Amino acid sequence: MTESRLQQLRTFMAAHQLDAAIITLPKHVYYLTGFFSEPHERFLGLIIPSDGEPTLVVPALDREAAEQASSVKQIATHSDTDNPYEVVKRLLKGRLQRVGLEKSHLTVNRYEALAAALEAETYVDLEAPLQEMRMIKSPDEVARIRKAIDVVEKVLAEGLKKVKAGVTELELVAELEYLMKRMGAEGPSFSTMVLAGENSALPHGHPGDRTIREGELLLFDMGVALDGYVSDITRTFAVGEINERQKEIYQTVLAANLAAIEAVRPGAALASLDKTARDLIAAKGYGEYFTHRLGHGMGMDVHEYPSVHGKNQDALRPGMVFTIEPGIYLPGVGGVRIEDNVLVTETGCEVLTSFPKELTVIG
Amino acid sequence: MTESRLQQLRTFMAAHQLDAAIITLPKHVYYLTGFFSEPHERFLGLIIPSDGEPTLVVPALDREAAEQASSVKQIATHSDTDNPYEVVKRLLKGRLQRVGLEKSHLTVNRYEALAAALEAETYVDLEAPLQEMRMIKSPDEVARIRKAIDVVEKVLAEGLKKVKAGVTELELVAELEYLMKRMGAEGPSFSTMVLAGENSALPHGHPGDRTIREGELLLFDMGVALDGYVSDITRTFAVGEINERQKEIYQTVLAANLAAIEAVRPGAALASLDKTARDLIAAKGYGEYFTHRLGHGMGMDVHEYPSVHGKNQDALRPGMVFTIEPGIYLPGVGGVRIEDNVLVTETGCEVLTSFPKELTVIG
Repeated sequence: MTESRLQQLRTFMAAHQLDAAIITLPKHVYYLTGFFSEPHERFLGLIIPSDGEPTLVVPALDREAAEQASSVKQIATHSDTDNPYEVVKRLLKGRLQRVGLEKSHLTVNRYEALAAALEAETYVDLEAPLQEMRMIKSPDEVARIRKAIDVVEKVLAEGLKKVKAGVTELELVAELEYLMKRMGAEGPSFSTMVLAGENSALPHGHPGDRTIREGELLLFDMGVALDGYVSDITRTFAVGEINERQKEIYQTVLAANLAAIEAVRPGAALASLDKTARDLIAAKGYGEYFTHRLGHGMGMDVHEYPSVHGKNQDALRPGMVFTIEPGIYLPGVGGVRIEDNVLVTETGCEVLTSFPKELTVIG
Repeated sequence: MTESRLQQLRTFMAAHQLDAAIITLPKHVYYLTGFFSEPHERFLGLIIPSDGEPTLVVPALDREAAEQASSVKQIATHSDTDNPYEVVKRLLKGRLQRVGLEKSHLTVNRYEALAAALEAETYVDLEAPLQEMRMIKSPDEVARIRKAIDVVEKVLAEGLKKVKAGVTELELVAELEYLMKRMGAEGPSFSTMVLAGENSALPHGHPGDRTIREGELLLFDMGVALDGYVSDITRTFAVGEINERQKEIYQTVLAANLAAIEAVRPGAALASLDKTARDLIAAKGYGEYFTHRLGHGMGMDVHEYPSVHGKNQDALRPGMVFTIEPGIYLPGVGGVRIEDNVLVTETGCEVLTSFPKELTVIG
């Protein structure tokens, strides 16, 4: 797997006439070699010369771990007294014209130290090819995402047992994040959201001391990180009996979620999914209350490409994984969002999340 | 407070002949204005021309929040369709020679976009003056640190009730992080460590499925983040009866902790604290098992200046806050670390942490 990724990067390098590429974001080093390490202030980098084999440069204390995990077998080390950028320079013989770097990750002082050692003429950003590659998931990546989904769904099922009138949003958040660790996750993939009543109408609200009350909507938006990959699911519940208006927005969002999923197939435009959901919500008169894009890619990050919004005319491709999360937010009243994680397959769509979506009364 | 900090920055600017300083790290914008915001991909910056008043540049949607919180009253906004760097350029009239930036924070692509708009001749790193300022805490900062300490000590006291043979390290971590949120913390200030038995001999171990057993040492290293500031405390306990060797290393570490605290006073060298603790541990024959520095500064970050190690000849100054955390780690047997947070006062030292340190049997 890492071999074909390196090959894709080499294609970009050739197209942009790069003499070398230097990968320093830890998750991209992992993506291209299978070795994950967070080196903090130390230097970690994958050095890929256009005319030779790649070398993984690691702090001396990581040599053994790198040798075991990395598919790139040429490994160079540096001690705390070495200048790691000189180690990089020695690996790249000769005069350098164009070198690829991750400009959205590298800090200016690292860049200056690297540039002082390399003395290349031009530095080119490598973000585009890496984002492009990451957009299409391998079977191994899908398996890891499934695992992260499995854990978060078990956590949600277990956490729901704690819902009763009088419990606060923050108490439920604490309970859920506790369950995540208990069930083997490294932790939440983003700050867990439990929003009750009128708070559920805030798409980016903060859980607080608001208590859960009968007759209200209760929204959970949560995910876990596990083995380098994440999940991200939203479900909204009725606490006790809710009114007709609340039921109507629930059913409208559910219909939009199902219709958008139905529209997922290779070749369709990402924008068409957003439009499908938005048109359905607008037809019910709630168009102005669906205030965000339909979804976002996910994988190693909880937000990555593709972006599922109304202006993205890119075509769906097999291997893409993204969220479908329509919502309706009535200020002062409450909101509903139903979010699934889907995989584009050769023939259509597989919904990776399996938590029930029918309106459910809890508490 | 923010006024005198801006004044200190201006002193640095004058000494380095800067035409302007541009602060973009959110916590530094907060430190200099009182306004905290995490703008993600949007631009947030405090622009300080050498010859005029500072301006806070915020995304349009943050104007109201910035007006309320910021002590810098001149506020400029940019919308998502503006180039924020052009907004910055307009605030800095005339030809720019030297401009200060946070090079250890700014990414290369932001730097390139900023440089393309500003066209200054030289960019100077502002990290040094900010680190220097942050090293001396204001009364308000000390009050926030005290609050973070108070919460983590309550969490530890409560969490200890869950310790019994058979419980795993990870279950205790989950319980502690649950209590942190319940008690009002934003979350842990670093990954909570609970290490049992031989795992306690790993200064940077990872809690796992190891169960707590009678006759072993149990080490807790934890802190919380609250209102922008952190705490960081370590205590080691005996689970049931422990042997003489374990007791000896406990008492040796405790003596080193107390002796180092006793040595804290303005004017003393940071190195002398490390030496005091290290000499005492070496005299008991455990010198080679105290494998890290004595401590580190803390405040907005859990690791900041000053560094309390044997080569740091800088003098202690009133307002410094740092950890004192001697340890002895016997491979395969177990380890003890006792970590306090101290404040250098005009006359000596105030120990901010108050959790008891006498050898305590739990479980």
